[in-house]
Amino acid sequence: MQAFAGRLIGAAQRRGNPVLVGLDPRLDLLPEGLAPGAAASPETAARAVISFCRGVIDVVAPLVPAVKPQAAFFEQLGPSGMTALAEVIAYARNSGLIVILDAKRNDIGSTAMAYADGLLGPGTSPWGADALTVSPYLGDDSLTPFVDTAVARGAGVFVLVKTSNPGGGLFQDLVADGLPIYRHVGRYVEGLAARTAGACAYGAVGAVVGATYPAQLAELRAAMPHTWFLVPGYGSQGGTAKDVAAAFDRRGLGAIVNNSRGLIFAHSIAPYKDRFGQARWQAAVETATRDMIARIRAETPAGKLNAA
Amino acid sequence: MQAFAGRLIGAAQRRGNPVLVGLDPRLDLLPEGLAPGAAASPETAARAVISFCRGVIDVVAPLVPAVKPQAAFFEQLGPSGMTALAEVIAYARNSGLIVILDAKRNDIGSTAMAYADGLLGPGTSPWGADALTVSPYLGDDSLTPFVDTAVARGAGVFVLVKTSNPGGGLFQDLVADGLPIYRHVGRYVEGLAARTAGACAYGAVGAVVGATYPAQLAELRAAMPHTWFLVPGYGSQGGTAKDVAAAFDRRGLGAIVNNSRGLIFAHSIAPYKDRFGQARWQAAVETATRDMIARIRAETPAGKLNAA
Repeated sequence: MQAFAGRLIGAAQRRGNPVLVGLDPRLDLLPEGLAPGAAASPETAARAVISFCRGVIDVVAPLVPAVKPQAAFFEQLGPSGMTALAEVIAYARNSGLIVILDAKRNDIGSTAMAYADGLLGPGTSPWGADALTVSPYLGDDSLTPFVDTAVARGAGVFVLVKTSNPGGGLFQDLVADGLPIYRHVGRYVEGLAARTAGACAYGAVGAVVGATYPAQLAELRAAMPHTWFLVPGYGSQGGTAKDVAAAFDRRGLGAIVNNSRGLIFAHSIAPYKDRFGQARWQAAVETATRDMIARIRAETPAGKLNAA
Repeated sequence: MQAFAGRLIGAAQRRGNPVLVGLDPRLDLLPEGLAPGAAASPETAARAVISFCRGVIDVVAPLVPAVKPQAAFFEQLGPSGMTALAEVIAYARNSGLIVILDAKRNDIGSTAMAYADGLLGPGTSPWGADALTVSPYLGDDSLTPFVDTAVARGAGVFVLVKTSNPGGGLFQDLVADGLPIYRHVGRYVEGLAARTAGACAYGAVGAVVGATYPAQLAELRAAMPHTWFLVPGYGSQGGTAKDVAAAFDRRGLGAIVNNSRGLIFAHSIAPYKDRFGQARWQAAVETATRDMIARIRAETPAGKLNAA
């Protein structure tokens, strides 16, 4: 299989945008027609989640390069939720989307290898994700099993570097040897990215860098030229298209920008709520996605992506 | 339900030891009679994992207070592995064991809440674990959802502080404001532990501190008086009973010491291999567990645990 960065670049160029649709199937936010009700069994809830995610995927597959299922909302439903997760990953891949599983897995070496073996690689692992988010606290020997497995299978890894949440700075912003911790993590991740980079300049290892800290986003873009950024925090968390512009290189490549609630639950958010309502929730998803694509394009450096 | 620390203390005192049996069902290490073979389907492999874990639990339930299933080895098998995980958790609880799910979950606030809601709390969540390991990189608002859910449900949380792997120091040992990062994380965790501590002095929040760094274990024990330690790294990773002695308070409380491979795969390790072999693998588990209990007791500060 082609290297992950090449596949991601190809998908972003084909769709002409870097929008990543986050699949966070929160039961209490599902459209009325799909909501399983508070007394539903986990199996019934899991079936509702599958229907909802398939409905989102049907709408966004022609528009964006990738989706990001959030493992927590599937795991919350117990084993039947995990069966739903596998179905949703397979459905998204069969719809031509790149699937980045947001599971923030992490453990020591041989255990990290078990996660990597199970989760990474379409067709070669039971979950079959194209890429996985991982957490860096356990250090280098906890990250390399994910990286090695990803490279061997044409998959990718996104390491948490500077996260979008208000409390992210508690440990990430502590300063050691003149640099905040997120810069230390970023430096290590950039080394992994450079080591795995092919002709396209980007490696199999990316970084999660929040849209809610635009100055740090620009700082890290300059410091991490081989590292593709997964940018959360756009939309409901407060990040704007202007905020994320610094994540891209001059070609308009180098980042994908996630939006979860703002797209998949657009039917419950202004201005889409009044226009579409519960019944036309898929039309709300489509319009919200097209609107985000237009906003990101307007602020992103000119290049192939805008021309597409 | 009674607070987690009280339940853990009660279980350790009833069994008279602080040994935690790690359930890491690596397929390639299963005893011959249970090994599913390289060509087995995920479903067949998951059934083998259930049989093996039930066999271990039957042996260790009368001997130790708690078990620690490692989520990675279940997740590696796909959705059927996760169904096996739920079955193993339920079987261990029904056998009277406290179940600490080692999943090192972490995410931003509302997503962390979904993990906590799904995983924590016997009888109140689909997975029903008594406690969960979590990773701290995302900061305070990523930890409090786990803590609040744990407290509400009589469950516990163990936060990674100083891990047992060789690469753990890459970020954990960086020094900021005169203290290594693991001490900053430890200070925050101790605050959570003190805030959730009841009459028994220990809180609902514990820390993962590796046996492989005994000096740091002693340093953290002194700095974190309300924090129960989950100590990995004993046995195959090199930690000894002498190394972990510093994890306990003067009553012999305050820590549980994990051993995974050294107990559950004792049939393949000297001196148990020659004595028991593949067929008598359960006898090997029992003897290895009794031997570890005796070694830990010999080095642990005198107190109720040794008297039991």
